[in-house]
Amino acid sequence: MNKIRVGIVGYGNVGRGVEKVITNTSDMELVGIFTRRDPNSIVLSDSKIPVYLVDEAKDMTDKIDVMLLCGGSATDLAVQAPEFASTFNIVCSYDNHAKIPDYLASVNAAATSTSAVISAGWDPGLFSMMRLMSESILPKGETYTFWGPGLSQGHSDALRRIDGVKNAVQYTIPIDKALDAVRSGKRPSFETREKHLRQCFVVLEPHADKADIENKIKTMPNYFADYDTVVNFIDEDELKLNHSQMPHGGTVIHSGNTKENEHVIEFSLKLESNPEFTASVMVACARACYRLYEKGDFGAKTVFDLPLAYLSPKSHADIVKELL
Amino acid sequence: MNKIRVGIVGYGNVGRGVEKVITNTSDMELVGIFTRRDPNSIVLSDSKIPVYLVDEAKDMTDKIDVMLLCGGSATDLAVQAPEFASTFNIVCSYDNHAKIPDYLASVNAAATSTSAVISAGWDPGLFSMMRLMSESILPKGETYTFWGPGLSQGHSDALRRIDGVKNAVQYTIPIDKALDAVRSGKRPSFETREKHLRQCFVVLEPHADKADIENKIKTMPNYFADYDTVVNFIDEDELKLNHSQMPHGGTVIHSGNTKENEHVIEFSLKLESNPEFTASVMVACARACYRLYEKGDFGAKTVFDLPLAYLSPKSHADIVKELL
Repeated sequence: MNKIRVGIVGYGNVGRGVEKVITNTSDMELVGIFTRRDPNSIVLSDSKIPVYLVDEAKDMTDKIDVMLLCGGSATDLAVQAPEFASTFNIVCSYDNHAKIPDYLASVNAAATSTSAVISAGWDPGLFSMMRLMSESILPKGETYTFWGPGLSQGHSDALRRIDGVKNAVQYTIPIDKALDAVRSGKRPSFETREKHLRQCFVVLEPHADKADIENKIKTMPNYFADYDTVVNFIDEDELKLNHSQMPHGGTVIHSGNTKENEHVIEFSLKLESNPEFTASVMVACARACYRLYEKGDFGAKTVFDLPLAYLSPKSHADIVKELL
Repeated sequence: MNKIRVGIVGYGNVGRGVEKVITNTSDMELVGIFTRRDPNSIVLSDSKIPVYLVDEAKDMTDKIDVMLLCGGSATDLAVQAPEFASTFNIVCSYDNHAKIPDYLASVNAAATSTSAVISAGWDPGLFSMMRLMSESILPKGETYTFWGPGLSQGHSDALRRIDGVKNAVQYTIPIDKALDAVRSGKRPSFETREKHLRQCFVVLEPHADKADIENKIKTMPNYFADYDTVVNFIDEDELKLNHSQMPHGGTVIHSGNTKENEHVIEFSLKLESNPEFTASVMVACARACYRLYEKGDFGAKTVFDLPLAYLSPKSHADIVKELL
């Protein structure tokens, strides 16, 4: 069997994750990494793969079966994804929930002779699958999504934008009492602050005003004001030592009933590396993407549109025998 | 939108579950229940649906879109499923894991102009989906399936076949220590008795020999000999009062890694009624089955072959907007 030939666009945390995952995936081969930076400045974490300027990709359509877009959702993907989808099969983990319908439409319009799998990660991604599956099976019920414990990139960035903050990380922590109430089948309603706690570890610039910064954090709208927020001031060494990993995870719980009987469906992830796990989902979806392409099933798809069999490198007979 | 017209073949626990679920499903309509018993002897739990002899079904192919086969896996389904699949779209929850490949082939051979979804329940079914999804995403890892706490029909039947046993139920109980070891990411190996405990509640016939029966249970090959088995003798009243529900559930845990980082994926079910939840999965799969049929995608499928979107009564735009 020919290996699926894969390219990576964007060499950040997720791009590096994909590099690690692919080099350990027997049915795939990493052809190149594409970057907007000087290719000579890129130090690969794990392999001897050629690095190209992103503009060079257009001459390599015959060398790459699926392009994994690992840029950021905020600015990169909305432009890159339709552009690449016009000539490459693509997979991305676009995660701006509110804008997914527009993004899907724009990638779909571009993917007239290619296949694209968008928003392939864990949320959106696996968590979305659980929400859909659960409410389809038990429509009389409620679905709850809890995130963490884990490091939130967006909230950490928000802290770092505050004047006087030198560096910072933020952990999102689901509140056990809320999780237990949901698991009990009670279908409670929650205020925002009852579901998650926000824990910040902040390194100050010299002469920064501690009390003022703590107040700015705790009252920051959208990010912190609606939560109970704990602010810890630490030094740079401690931040490096104890807070340079990117763990994450979360839990989706659906509590529903068939007449008088209650049922609880629970799915959870405990991830030591958020970007590497996201990369793992993208790689499995790259396999699915290539299967869609081989079947002539073009256009933009989501995790809702993929038969799970497409994710596996195994034959259909083997998955039925071993896993059903 | 026309409702999907559904029939039930076999009016046992699962058939009664399907009846309950369908009468609360807005995009489906229950057309009839088909039985081998005298239709006049059937007391419906929940509806005023016509009851027919199973042989009458063959004249109703134009009245039913999907037939839900609710007979037992041991003897009914292997005969019924190919027979019905030749003229009806069918869904079943065939659960004899070892024989699924042959069963799938025989239903597939019959379903030349119909669609069939087999083994649609929670194991096989949802648990199978989790096993496939998890190992596809994290191929370097181990998947563990724990069943219970819950009532095992097969093991309860085995108890009731013992001479001197008037009635009995058996609960399968996963062992917490094993669950915790798996969750920790250690990827342990287990003896059979280290994963599950078997708890029996037995009502004796008058003059039965308690010690002899306890010994027969604990040494019964395949069912109990390899487990730590607890036998409790109780009277018929207590059995009826405390042990007439059919709760079940279980947990699938996959522990895997991307190089040095460990990740744990966990899925669990806590079900107050095993047959009603199985029925709920079958009903969602009936929707998927009918979508396959409408697309001309004939033959026998498993849960591995269904895009999750097919399970939902909602439009694709709505699931993307609400759930992705």
